Amino acid sequence: MSERKRRAGADAAAGGSTSKKPRGASAAASYAQSLRSKLRPDASILASLRALASAASKSKPAAASSAGAKALSEDDPTSASSNYIVVADQDTTSVTSRINRLVLSVARSILAGRGFSFAVPSRASSNQVYLPDLDRIVLLRRESARPFANVATARKATVTARVLSLVHAVLRRGIHVTKRDLFYTDVKLFGDQSQSDAILDDVSCMLGCTRSSLHVVASEKGVVVGRLIFADDGDVIDCTRMGVGGKAIPPNIDRVSGIESDALFILLVEKDAAFMRLAEDRFYNRFPCIILTAKGQPDVATRLFLRRLKVELKLPVLALVDSDPYGLKILSVYMCGSKNMSYDSANLTTPDIKWLGVRPSDLDKYRVPEQCRLPMTDHDIKVGKEMLEEDFVKQNEGWVKELETMLRTKQKAEIQALSSFGFQYLTEVYLPLKLQQEDWI
Amino acid sequence: MSERKRRAGADAAAGGSTSKKPRGASAAASYAQSLRSKLRPDASILASLRALASAASKSKPAAASSAGAKALSEDDPTSASSNYIVVADQDTTSVTSRINRLVLSVARSILAGRGFSFAVPSRASSNQVYLPDLDRIVLLRRESARPFANVATARKATVTARVLSLVHAVLRRGIHVTKRDLFYTDVKLFGDQSQSDAILDDVSCMLGCTRSSLHVVASEKGVVVGRLIFADDGDVIDCTRMGVGGKAIPPNIDRVSGIESDALFILLVEKDAAFMRLAEDRFYNRFPCIILTAKGQPDVATRLFLRRLKVELKLPVLALVDSDPYGLKILSVYMCGSKNMSYDSANLTTPDIKWLGVRPSDLDKYRVPEQCRLPMTDHDIKVGKEMLEEDFVKQNEGWVKELETMLRTKQKAEIQALSSFGFQYLTEVYLPLKLQQEDWI
Repeated sequence: MSERKRRAGADAAAGGSTSKKPRGASAAASYAQSLRSKLRPDASILASLRALASAASKSKPAAASSAGAKALSEDDPTSASSNYIVVADQDTTSVTSRINRLVLSVARSILAGRGFSFAVPSRASSNQVYLPDLDRIVLLRRESARPFANVATARKATVTARVLSLVHAVLRRGIHVTKRDLFYTDVKLFGDQSQSDAILDDVSCMLGCTRSSLHVVASEKGVVVGRLIFADDGDVIDCTRMGVGGKAIPPNIDRVSGIESDALFILLVEKDAAFMRLAEDRFYNRFPCIILTAKGQPDVATRLFLRRLKVELKLPVLALVDSDPYGLKILSVYMCGSKNMSYDSANLTTPDIKWLGVRPSDLDKYRVPEQCRLPMTDHDIKVGKEMLEEDFVKQNEGWVKELETMLRTKQKAEIQALSSFGFQYLTEVYLPLKLQQEDWI
Repeated sequence: MSERKRRAGADAAAGGSTSKKPRGASAAASYAQSLRSKLRPDASILASLRALASAASKSKPAAASSAGAKALSEDDPTSASSNYIVVADQDTTSVTSRINRLVLSVARSILAGRGFSFAVPSRASSNQVYLPDLDRIVLLRRESARPFANVATARKATVTARVLSLVHAVLRRGIHVTKRDLFYTDVKLFGDQSQSDAILDDVSCMLGCTRSSLHVVASEKGVVVGRLIFADDGDVIDCTRMGVGGKAIPPNIDRVSGIESDALFILLVEKDAAFMRLAEDRFYNRFPCIILTAKGQPDVATRLFLRRLKVELKLPVLALVDSDPYGLKILSVYMCGSKNMSYDSANLTTPDIKWLGVRPSDLDKYRVPEQCRLPMTDHDIKVGKEMLEEDFVKQNEGWVKELETMLRTKQKAEIQALSSFGFQYLTEVYLPLKLQQEDWI
């Protein structure tokens, strides 16, 4: 980072108090001003962040990697002793040999006169449960046979065999493809993409490998900036030198290596507008952090990337989301996984994310003007009530309280609502004050 | 680029003929194989690309930058002699002084007893026309008064004054904000975001400045890789070293500088799946090019970025889109602009993009299997017929023919349909052959 930029950052922070305030909300603005005066010097805030980071690095590794992935024996993923299915990241050699063994066992079954059949784990929603011990949604172990010599399953057995052979070909060439690519290799057989997608998930469960181990990747949406260096397909990327646009998070996590960082925390941001503000203000230079966003609903690539960062760097993760039921839902996808990817929850989820803001209680605490809050719709309230029933919310008393506050006041607010105190209020006052007060739950 | 990667690229190209072919479409596959044998050595293809690039660099500068932006006198943008409105990129000092002059003239009008009023260009759709000379959609010059002392316009005049003051504040701080940020600074006045957005477009026309000159930016979606070096907010980015993920295109084009490239062409890709294939195969090492995508409908940031590349590097632009009416529509947005941003078409559009593929005639030429083509829906056909009536399509005889072919066969196909010949068919056969045959229109 150049000295010029450092100074620009410091000036912005110091000169902030002379910034223009909207006239419409002058009482709130003067309160915002008073909050600014509460800010202690950065050195003091940094000290508390260092304590947080060091506590996170000493804590036990993420539950998922210890209890989940390691419960599987490397040799036979389908005979794990646990009663739920967890898939794990595997290298190309391992996946290829698993496919070979699977196909050999089918061949032996045919030769022995027992016919051509696959044993496929059931991914029905009745089979998806939340495990409080692991703090995520997992898939219970229950397999069904998929024989070729049965009218009901002949087609599915054929498609399964075809997908296995395609995955094998992709791995052999050492490339990555999308689900759409896979579908188009045999449209006649697959019919429509939902069928090849579903079988691909089956194959992932059968082999005990993550979808990214199969080299079938999702499209990327996420971006990252901040105190992070990593290699994307061998190219070393310094995320403090990625300008305002940031580095696109790579679709294929297995090509990411050499992760290094001197950050004290990871700041997970829901929306790209807030990300842009943080990137332009080079927030990570004032408070060493890694800033990432999936621009709304988290995609698989961003979730995998966040998890890798968390596991390798052992940094605390602080989340900045909208104060509405969807902000919380996004948090839950990062933390506990989505239901239809439950078999892969160990690799996709990042436990122990702290909810930094914007929290329903912040609206009053930071006196967000009434006109910047929005009334919750009936649908919002319904979703909010459903969230209250979710096990992952119930586990955290603070979250329950916040959600109850939201439902009582029937108000929601976006991160952007903080702009009502000035465009840089987010980076100059709100976040520093939150960090200073260790105000996360 | 490391020697290892160069070699990997060469190996992939050489070893391609042994790749696994789907069994389902064996006749088509063997034809695909025969196409591969038609490929001349890369050196010969590169020679024709060099000729293309050198022709492009000698051609006159893009129509927009000569006829459009320069028609405006720097001193008073609203008194340009032409009868249509064109906004231009302006630096912060120029925009600030334009705002100052505008506000001073309003103040003088008040002091002279003529009251408080703005002269605002009409952005009604009846005012948006396609100019064949310029090959883009422009806004005719027709202004209406927006007096404060009139019940019908008092509110709008107030909002206009407020937006002008907010833009002034943003420019003074040297930062960038989103439309959403702008809205949230005064929710009480703006009511809903569509109102502040509309007035922002008015202000852009009134000042004769692009929206990005006002430092109000759109969110970014696009990514870029390949033979390009540029600085994003002072950070130098080498796009050959951005792995598979690529570099996110920055939201604020005015922070982009130092554009350098040894590419022979720019490859504009509609979808991110194709982008990923090209990035992973490091296509730009075999054929020096810059590859970019907006992942579907082009956003403002990507359009601005493409235009900057085209104007500064004077490279030919080749487009790879789906063979359906929307692929063509996307091309039209890049080339001629969208109707609701017509006043800014000079800065957002990139004229002279060549349609490389996937074109309706390619489906038979490359024998894309029937099952990988999709029947056009009634809506597709309606959109296709509308496109035939568009002036920008009519200008290009080749495009009319292709569109007629599409409507006659009633078939469409995605770029991904080429995967039916093998995952790397796109990068190893289809595109090299297209380039070799100079098969663009």
